This record gives sequence, structure tokens and C-alpha cells, in this order.
Amino acid sequence: MFCLVPSPDQRAEANNNIPASDTASSGFLGNLLVVPMDGSHWVGIKAIAQEMGRRGHRVTVVIPEISMRMGPGKHYDTVTYPVPYDKAHIDSIMSSLKDMMEKSSFTEKIRKGFSKIGQRNLKIPNFFLSEHDEKSNFDAVLTDPVAPTGSLIARKLGIPTINLLRGLPCSLDMKSAGCPSPPSYVPRFLTRYTDKMSFQERAFNTLVALLEPLLCRLLYWHFDQIAYQFLGEEVGIAEVLSESAIWLLRLDFTLEFPRPIMPNVVLVGGINCNVRHPLPEDLESWVSGEHGFVVFTLGTMLSDLPEETTSVFLEAFRQIPQKVIWRYTGQVPDSFPENVKLMNWVPQNDLLAHPGARAFITHAGSHGLFEGLCHAVPMVMMPFGGDQPDNAVRLASRGAGVVLDIYSITTESLLQGLNEVINDTRYKENMQKLSALHKDRPVDPLDLSVYWTEFVMRHKGAKHLRPAVLDLNWLQYYCLDVIAVLASVVLFFVILIVKCLKLCFWKLSRKRKQD
Amino acid sequence: MFCLVPSPDQRAEANNNIPASDTASSGFLGNLLVVPMDGSHWVGIKAIAQEMGRRGHRVTVVIPEISMRMGPGKHYDTVTYPVPYDKAHIDSIMSSLKDMMEKSSFTEKIRKGFSKIGQRNLKIPNFFLSEHDEKSNFDAVLTDPVAPTGSLIARKLGIPTINLLRGLPCSLDMKSAGCPSPPSYVPRFLTRYTDKMSFQERAFNTLVALLEPLLCRLLYWHFDQIAYQFLGEEVGIAEVLSESAIWLLRLDFTLEFPRPIMPNVVLVGGINCNVRHPLPEDLESWVSGEHGFVVFTLGTMLSDLPEETTSVFLEAFRQIPQKVIWRYTGQVPDSFPENVKLMNWVPQNDLLAHPGARAFITHAGSHGLFEGLCHAVPMVMMPFGGDQPDNAVRLASRGAGVVLDIYSITTESLLQGLNEVINDTRYKENMQKLSALHKDRPVDPLDLSVYWTEFVMRHKGAKHLRPAVLDLNWLQYYCLDVIAVLASVVLFFVILIVKCLKLCFWKLSRKRKQD
Repeated sequence: MFCLVPSPDQRAEANNNIPASDTASSGFLGNLLVVPMDGSHWVGIKAIAQEMGRRGHRVTVVIPEISMRMGPGKHYDTVTYPVPYDKAHIDSIMSSLKDMMEKSSFTEKIRKGFSKIGQRNLKIPNFFLSEHDEKSNFDAVLTDPVAPTGSLIARKLGIPTINLLRGLPCSLDMKSAGCPSPPSYVPRFLTRYTDKMSFQERAFNTLVALLEPLLCRLLYWHFDQIAYQFLGEEVGIAEVLSESAIWLLRLDFTLEFPRPIMPNVVLVGGINCNVRHPLPEDLESWVSGEHGFVVFTLGTMLSDLPEETTSVFLEAFRQIPQKVIWRYTGQVPDSFPENVKLMNWVPQNDLLAHPGARAFITHAGSHGLFEGLCHAVPMVMMPFGGDQPDNAVRLASRGAGVVLDIYSITTESLLQGLNEVINDTRYKENMQKLSALHKDRPVDPLDLSVYWTEFVMRHKGAKHLRPAVLDLNWLQYYCLDVIAVLASVVLFFVILIVKCLKLCFWKLSRKRKQD
Repeated sequence: MFCLVPSPDQRAEANNNIPASDTASSGFLGNLLVVPMDGSHWVGIKAIAQEMGRRGHRVTVVIPEISMRMGPGKHYDTVTYPVPYDKAHIDSIMSSLKDMMEKSSFTEKIRKGFSKIGQRNLKIPNFFLSEHDEKSNFDAVLTDPVAPTGSLIARKLGIPTINLLRGLPCSLDMKSAGCPSPPSYVPRFLTRYTDKMSFQERAFNTLVALLEPLLCRLLYWHFDQIAYQFLGEEVGIAEVLSESAIWLLRLDFTLEFPRPIMPNVVLVGGINCNVRHPLPEDLESWVSGEHGFVVFTLGTMLSDLPEETTSVFLEAFRQIPQKVIWRYTGQVPDSFPENVKLMNWVPQNDLLAHPGARAFITHAGSHGLFEGLCHAVPMVMMPFGGDQPDNAVRLASRGAGVVLDIYSITTESLLQGLNEVINDTRYKENMQKLSALHKDRPVDPLDLSVYWTEFVMRHKGAKHLRPAVLDLNWLQYYCLDVIAVLASVVLFFVILIVKCLKLCFWKLSRKRKQD
């Protein structure tokens, strides 16, 4: 059963308390449904939900009773749905490094993960609609389509969708937006290529591109089943997603390699850059010091390491003059260097924004990467899966960080990496240039996200931005039918001319013989 | 010889007189060279030059001594260069309708026009640089690349270029920006197709796309020669243009069909929408009246019509209750209806912004179209060349105007067209919806143009937005080399397998025979 977590009516509150210029620009106040994802995915969605509520819209966020990070906020209502697990279960699925290192391929892991998410998420839309379809009057759905529950609800309710995401495996996001991705210079997800590829890389990238449709079928098979069951129509997830009004992509061309995008794709990389608070006083005084400090986090999912890996890190930290703040939830070792502070949770963005931050040791998740980029902190990157190796390549290829293999890390390699980014000034300079470009945008990414969310609500979609390519099959898209007909016509005329010439020669030679 | 038209030093003036928040956002004040085009092309460039000067940048605009519309402004310096013709010559080349109706094909007209522009413009860069290369210290060039003089100067000076344009024939703009334009849903220039094409249309569009490289060679042959002579290197105009930092395209997806764009392509259609002044008092009082009025202009180039066509128009205007303001420079007829006012020049944008404007009779030039769209005035469109027929199709396909053939216009057809857009409320409603979408953008197009111009000056270009596709040849771009190798490998294995199978069968059958 759904339950509405009580919260002040933010429309009334906002209209009374905030300046007129801060409310929705057109005066339009709407009703937004938000279907978020957990973990770091929650950060951007929460920022938009908060800001939409603050501007006076009614915002309803649908979250499970038990989650990693999702919860109520000042400017939105939360609707919770029951789940068949408890907090301990959540903690147990926070994968340990050991799990991450298991031998099954990454694709296999994604597939399994998707299958689990799929089974869990199947319940959400049905639950939600059984409670809400009659009485709700939403203008749009804001969602993270990594689990396309929100997109399914939107289709069922006949309302437009705004997606916020970093990207989908097998380029399903670009495919569903109708966006061309030429494999000659658009490196595929998980290949770790840049936009300048050798012949072999281009060949492999093209092969991956050719296999992507198959990969999509495999990865989204569970969601396709859910779509069919829930919507009662023969429609796959790719088609459901292609109806999205606006794609807010957490990308930015200071990191991403330039590539074609469609008119309804809006780049909002760095959306949480300005979501900041002052550091707690004790932390502020701890980090101060002439050598500055290093921030060390490996994301929401990885805050515990095997004992021997922990020792490797501690031994390296003992040998640097900087202080180190480490997000660490594992067993605290008996002794560790004085310059290290272990914390269950760290205010990562606020720490990186501090002028004393010298380096950022990160798994190169997209959120952390943008926070480091925003505050121009050079990075030591240790990707362990997902989009992280690709992210790391993007930053490293700009000379603003180094990449280390977390699976074979040693005290020496870590020390060398840290020394490089802290003491070789080129890393900091490159990072400052990148950061300046990244922050030099006409509209702040959070404001831009809110703008387009409001746009979709005001205009009941963004149909004028929907490309006609979405109505073409692949034969038509690549004009293979046209090429076939043109080639046939050319072939016909070539054969005709050859036949005519043969006939002429034959007649001519016969005439000569007769002469 | 160049001469500097005296004007106040706008940097000092701007810094003293305008509020701090209105000056360049980053505090950076630069030195901008502007190489504009004449006619309606001047409108957008002038607006940016004015605004850049007003924000405190030093702006130098290079214009010929004699021109149609270009001239000095409050916030920029003008540098003039001598031309071998006088004002009378300019007046004579303002093509009359008769010229427009001449039988030579439009492509031929463009080629001739380009050749003339080329010959004239060849002199500009040499003139300019002989005077300026030593003493100038420009940060960037803002130009209209329909005549790529500015691009040539920029390349010679080694500074980045910002282009402002509607589009180039043979899609040279999109080609130079590295932007994919799939012929299956991106209609080609001059075809008058929409993004939803029948098989025949798609076939023709594909043929045009295939012929575009050839067409480009033909059209830009003169400019290629100029580039070679001026730069002293083996480089064509396409390559010079591909180095452009930012493309400001006077397009907007409320009119344009959604298509892929590159990260350095910024859409600023409607750039002059808000460049407005109050109507002169006599005009304000003349246009007032319960039935409203019709604005009738056919662009900079066409303000004179043959006598019989003029009569057709006057006869139609006599039969409508609305007043008509007609930009007309031809011989004034002995008698004309009282509700018609003929003027040598009309404040088009200000008239369309008046609440009394009921309809806009236009040649569907891009500037007029955006002004009508901005103020939601339904249109009767009479395109006679260039991008006008394509523009007209775009607006008509949205149900916001009707298209008439100016070459066969009759009083009846004009009356019917006017009645439709004025009295059938659907036209006004569609136009209002389109206008609302058009104006609902995160940043005003003029501000956006100024923003990106400043961006290029601040960062000495926009290299991070340059797509790697510009370094690939077409074999690599389409991965034809990869496909050839992959196909060869597949073929090799197929042949190998067939041979093996044959051998096996042969051995098997021999063995059986032996048995």
C-alpha cells in the first residue's frame, strides 16, 4: 500500500515565502511525478525535485520504503511503496570489492543486475497506479530510465517524460533519441577508446556498434517483458523510451568527445556542482594545514576494502605530507597514520570545493568526476566497472588525472600517482583550464534541467523536437531501399547499353563479313 | 585605402555608463573584428556587434564605402574599404521581379552571384590586411560565411571565427561543422520537402545529397581560388570553414525539422525579435482601427513590382476591411485605395509587434519569417527564390500560413489567401502556439550569440567542441575500410569452410566407393 509522507504543501509555502522572480518563470505551476533511482543516481534527480518544489510546483517523489540514499526533502512530497527486504539486505548488496572482482564478465553482471532491478520494479508501476491513476493529475514524469519504471507509468498515464541519466548500456539512450553515433569517431560504451581511433580500434568499435542491437535485446529482455505485461501492448522498452520528451544527459563536452546530439537532448553534466554547504567546523579545522588534503572516496557502492588493500593505501598515505579524508565503512584498522581520517560518510562536493583540496582519489563515477572537475581538483582514478573506465579515459586524455588499476594497486604505484597529480603542476593547470571551460556555460545545468522540466509541463511535451527518424525503420533510415532501386536502375541501363553495343558490334562485323 | 570612421571609444563609454552587471560577464574585455554581409544578412550581425560594443568590447566592423544597409553604429567602429561602384550601381542590382523571373535556373543564379561576390571580396582581405595585420590584435572574427572573407582573414591572422548565418547552399555549413544529415529525414536545401518524405521524395533527396559534394565544388570554385591566392596554401573553402569555432545558425526547431546538430552549432533563430522601437506617431495613429492592418514587404531586394502585378495587389487590398502598409519603392500609381499606405521603408518588426497586425504578406525570407513568428502574425507567403520556398513549406506545414505563387498571382487567389489567414482562427491559433514555443527558450538568442562570441574570445576558440570527424576522410568516416576488411575476413572463412566441406564430402564419397 502506498503512504503519503506528510510534508508542508510546498505550493502554498513557496508562493508565500519566496520572491516572485524565483517562482516558475511563466507563472505556470504544475504537478510533477518523480520516479528516481537509488545510489548516486539520486543526487541529480533530488536537486531538480527540490528546485521544482521550491519554485512552487507540486512534486511527488515515489521511493521504496527501504533505500540506500533516497528520502524525504523540504520541497517535495514522498510516496513510499513496500519492498520485500529490510535495511540489512540493502547493506549486504552494497557490493564489496571482492564481489566486484569476481570473475563473471561485466556484461553478465549488468544483465543479472538488470534482471533483479526488473523483478523489483515490475511491482512499482502496478502498485502506484492502483492507488493513483484516478485521483492523480500529473503534468509530467521526471525519471532516471536506467530502470524505466517512470517511463512505463508515463506511457500508461499518457503524459510526457523527462529523463535524467548519464547514459544507458548499448547506447539505448542515443538510439531511442534517434541520435546518430558514427562508430568512426564516437567510441562505444565500455571500449575505453577516445574519439581518435586507430584502424584496429575503429574496427572493434564498429563491431561493437553492429552488435549493439543484439546486446540491447539481451540486456533489456526483462524490461521488455515488464512493458508488455504492464502496458498490455506489443511494445518494447526502446519504443517506450523513444517517446521521451526531453533527455537531460549528465554529460559535458569538456569531458565527452564531441558528437552529434538531437534537439531534445540537453547536456547537464555537473548538475550538482553548486549544491553545496559549509564544512562542519571540526572538519574545517582538521583539513586546514599548509600541505592541503586528499579526498578519497570510491562511490556509494564501495566503502569497504579487503584488509591487504587497506594496508596498501594506508602505507602510501603515511608517506605523503597531505592529510587524507577517506570514506570508509569497513573495520577500522588497529593503527593508521595520523594524517588519515576515516569517515562513514563525507561531504564530497563541499570538501572538493575547499581551497586546500590537492587531489581526489576516486573510482571515476560520473558524479565524483564532475565534482572534481567543477572545483578543479586533479584526480587519481581507480575505475572498477560500469562507465568508470570510460570516464577515466576521458579525463586522463585531457592530462588532468592518472588512472591506476585498483585490482593490482601497490603502495609504490599509488604514491607515484599521488605525487604526479599533486606535484607536477601541469595536472593542476590542465584541470583549471578544463574546469574554466566546464563552468563557462550560458545556463547553470541545474537551472537548465528545471527549465526543460517546466517547459515539458507548460507545453504538455516537446513534440516539435521529436525527430522524424523515430518513424523510420532501419531500411528507410539508411535509404537502403532507395539505394537498391537506384542501383537496379543503373544496372538496367548498364546491361541495356552493353546489349546494344554488342548488337551494334555484331551487326557491324556481319556487315563487314558480307562486304 | 582604409579609413576609420570616428566613433566614441566604446570601451571607455561602456565602462563608465552602463551598470556592472551589463558588461561582459567574466570581466574579460576583448577586441572583435566583424566582417558582415549586406542586405538582410546585416541585421543579426549588427545586433551582435552593437551588444558586444555596449558590453565594453572593442568592435571593428569592416564594410564597403557603398552598401545597401550597412553603416556606422553607436557601439562599434567602422572601417571602410573602397569599392569600384557607386550608389546608383547598388540600386540597379537590387533585382526587380522581372529579373527574378528570368529563365536561368536558380543554381545558375547562385553561381553567378557567388562569382560576382567572390571577385569583389577577393580585394577585401588583401586590402584589410595590408593596413591591419601588424597593428591589429584581434581576439576573434565574427562573420557571415556566405562570403567567407572573414574566415580567410581569421585563418591568416590565426584567430578563431564565429559564424552567423541561415545556412549555405549544398549544406556546406553542416558539412564543415561535421554534422550528419541523413537524407532519409533531413530534407535538402531547395527541395521544399518536409521531414516526412514519400519513397520518391526520399529517393530524390538522397540523389541531391549524393550530388552535394559536386555542387559545392561548382558553387565554391571562385572562393577556392581566392583562398588559394590569399592564403598561399592548398586549401579549399570547406576546409577553411571547418576550422570555425562556433556556428550561430539563424534557425529554430519551431520551424526547422528536428535533425542532429554538433556541439559547436548554436541555434539563434529569432535573433532580432527583441530589437524593437516604438512606432512613429503618425504611423501609430494610421494603423489604429477596429479591423487592424496587413504588413506587406518582399524583403530588401524586392520593393518594386511590374505595373500589372501592382494592380493585382491593389485590387485585392481594395476589397478587404484591413489597412495595408506596403514597402514599395516603384512608381506610385495614379490612384490607389484609401486603406493602402505605400512607404519606401517600413519598420517591419515594430509593425508586426503591434497588436493590430492581422496578417503579413511576405516573400518568406528568414528574418521576416522569424519576426512574424515572434509576434504571432499569420502569413501569406510568396517565395521567389533562395531559401524562401523551403522556409514557406516549414511554416505552412505547421498550419500558420498559406503559400501563393507570386509568378501567377491573381486578385482572387490573394484575396482567398488573406481571408483564410485573417478569418480562419486556426491560423492565428497555430501561430500563437508556435510563437509560444519559439519564445520559450532558456536564453534569448541575441544574448546567446553574444555569450558564445565572448566565450570564443575568452578561451581563444572552442577547441574542446571540435569533432574528430573533421580529421577523417570519407572512407574512414563511413568505416568503408573496416567494412571491406571485415567482409574479406568473412568471405575468407566462408570459402575455407566450403572448401573443407567439399574435401570432406569428397573423401567420404571416395571411402564409400572403396567400401
